Amino acid sequence: MFDIKILSKADTEKLLKMKDVINVVENVYKSKSEDKTCVFPLIFHEFEPGVADMDIKSGWLKEGNIFGLKLVSWFGENVKKDLPSLVGLIVVLDSTTGVPLGILDGAHITGMRTGAAGALGAKYLARPDSETLLLVGAGHVSTFQIAASLLLFPKLKSVFIYDPINYKTAVNKVNTIVETLSNDFGIKVDESLQFKAVEDIKEATGKSDIIITVTPSKKPIIMKEWVKPGTHFSCIGADMSGKEEIDPEIFRDARIFVDDITQCINVGETEIPVSRDIIKKEDIAGEIGDIIAGKTMGRENDEQVTIFDATGIALLDLATAKLALDEAKKISMGSTVNI
Amino acid sequence: MFDIKILSKADTEKLLKMKDVINVVENVYKSKSEDKTCVFPLIFHEFEPGVADMDIKSGWLKEGNIFGLKLVSWFGENVKKDLPSLVGLIVVLDSTTGVPLGILDGAHITGMRTGAAGALGAKYLARPDSETLLLVGAGHVSTFQIAASLLLFPKLKSVFIYDPINYKTAVNKVNTIVETLSNDFGIKVDESLQFKAVEDIKEATGKSDIIITVTPSKKPIIMKEWVKPGTHFSCIGADMSGKEEIDPEIFRDARIFVDDITQCINVGETEIPVSRDIIKKEDIAGEIGDIIAGKTMGRENDEQVTIFDATGIALLDLATAKLALDEAKKISMGSTVNI
Repeated sequence: MFDIKILSKADTEKLLKMKDVINVVENVYKSKSEDKTCVFPLIFHEFEPGVADMDIKSGWLKEGNIFGLKLVSWFGENVKKDLPSLVGLIVVLDSTTGVPLGILDGAHITGMRTGAAGALGAKYLARPDSETLLLVGAGHVSTFQIAASLLLFPKLKSVFIYDPINYKTAVNKVNTIVETLSNDFGIKVDESLQFKAVEDIKEATGKSDIIITVTPSKKPIIMKEWVKPGTHFSCIGADMSGKEEIDPEIFRDARIFVDDITQCINVGETEIPVSRDIIKKEDIAGEIGDIIAGKTMGRENDEQVTIFDATGIALLDLATAKLALDEAKKISMGSTVNI
Repeated sequence: MFDIKILSKADTEKLLKMKDVINVVENVYKSKSEDKTCVFPLIFHEFEPGVADMDIKSGWLKEGNIFGLKLVSWFGENVKKDLPSLVGLIVVLDSTTGVPLGILDGAHITGMRTGAAGALGAKYLARPDSETLLLVGAGHVSTFQIAASLLLFPKLKSVFIYDPINYKTAVNKVNTIVETLSNDFGIKVDESLQFKAVEDIKEATGKSDIIITVTPSKKPIIMKEWVKPGTHFSCIGADMSGKEEIDPEIFRDARIFVDDITQCINVGETEIPVSRDIIKKEDIAGEIGDIIAGKTMGRENDEQVTIFDATGIALLDLATAKLALDEAKKISMGSTVNI
């Protein structure tokens, strides 16, 4: 009865350019601040705590005339079965008719929009003259963060990569990143830019202008006393109650922005500083979209520590999925099913 | 990365037999009573009140090792655009790996499992010697109710059909129902069974043993004083706050069962009797699955009025969708996409 476009992971990898995803994510944040979006309540279920869970995030983008959901399964023991532990599925529907438009694999889209989010946090909050980026976490997600950051900070001189579990993971990332950026993202790295795996996180923290954290950590990896004035943090990893990547004391004097206030207080990096009364909800300067929409200013001076806490909102997935669907239409990519 | 089976409305129409769907629905109700299922919170959003809304119902069937969701859009003005006003999409995933198994059109599945639900309410609560069935509402949904009821009550002598808006709709239904049951459900109607369109709902109510209501009404259509002792009601239509089909006073002395207690009190036929203090939550005898599981008895005597309030639970859609997927596999029906 309806033709629905199906896009696989491979399709979305071919279709999406990071530059365009950054624009889409920036627009969604702005729309959210301008009340042109609606985030529906999150559904989360643990099949077995710490072993398997799933969540359904959904919402409505009024300007784009789309609504829909992303369902993400996490099954930690899938590795033993030669299956990915994270599986994501995005459903996009037309909000003028309720008709489904497309069903997409969510893995690559999530990576792209999360990379864009972390880098946009830096764009609006880091010092414009930032030269050193530190990635905390050297997994798959970090590649997207680096790709987006290089596009928004073309003058970066150093990228430090730290892995809290295994130094070799960071070394491997450094050894392959230039080729990956070229092959998967079409980004040519200038020879003047140095990638470096770091073992001493304290030292690396003290040298960094922008720090992006992308780990599933449940205790702080970076302590307040290591942080130099003017540092910006994009905290990406914490998206579940109990997760934290940086010393909650860093929040005390920082200028703090979030992607979604309620969600960040419930499950983001902001959860623990609020629950420990280090900051109050009112100490959050706003949502990142408030800066983009011109409602408030980001960084107030060069000495200020700034934080962007991003928990991930379905609106980003939906808008990025719509971008992929539009691009697929232009070149007749993907398959179409009649349902 | 994964092969997902896609089943269209036409596929599900060919694959599902009402007899099998009744078994599936009966088992799900039983499993629910035995805590072998999990219903996740409902998401509901009105794009424009009374004009367009959507809901996402989701859950987990532990025994069947599946979880998933049904997304239903209702866009009342779609008729003007030559589109169906209700659009449903069901996603079924494997609860041992989180991997998607199938994506199915939800329209026919919803009709089938709703028909099964209404008739099962009667199976467990109506007098076994019931001879007269009254359908209140002559729309598309009523056909499924009739099909399932005929399978469970082969000794029925009369089926009255009443349409609260337009008598002609009931007449049309009567004129076409025998052929529809034969063509679409493979059910041959015995010549001794009479179908009759009724104009006088008061008179028809007084003659009926089983009454199934399937309208979107927001005010009572059947009043208490018309109801004869021993009547059974399966209330199917009310699935949103404010909807009601029968006089809330009927609840006062009735033996009441529901499909899901919380959901029925929030959005079912049970909502208004509870909110008006005609009954308390404790007056609900149980969920229908409690009878099927042998935890409690249904009807206590031949004089009692019984009510089954069914709001619809995603577990029924998921289990019915899984049945369709299993049947499709046997005969290689449907399309498969790689995502």
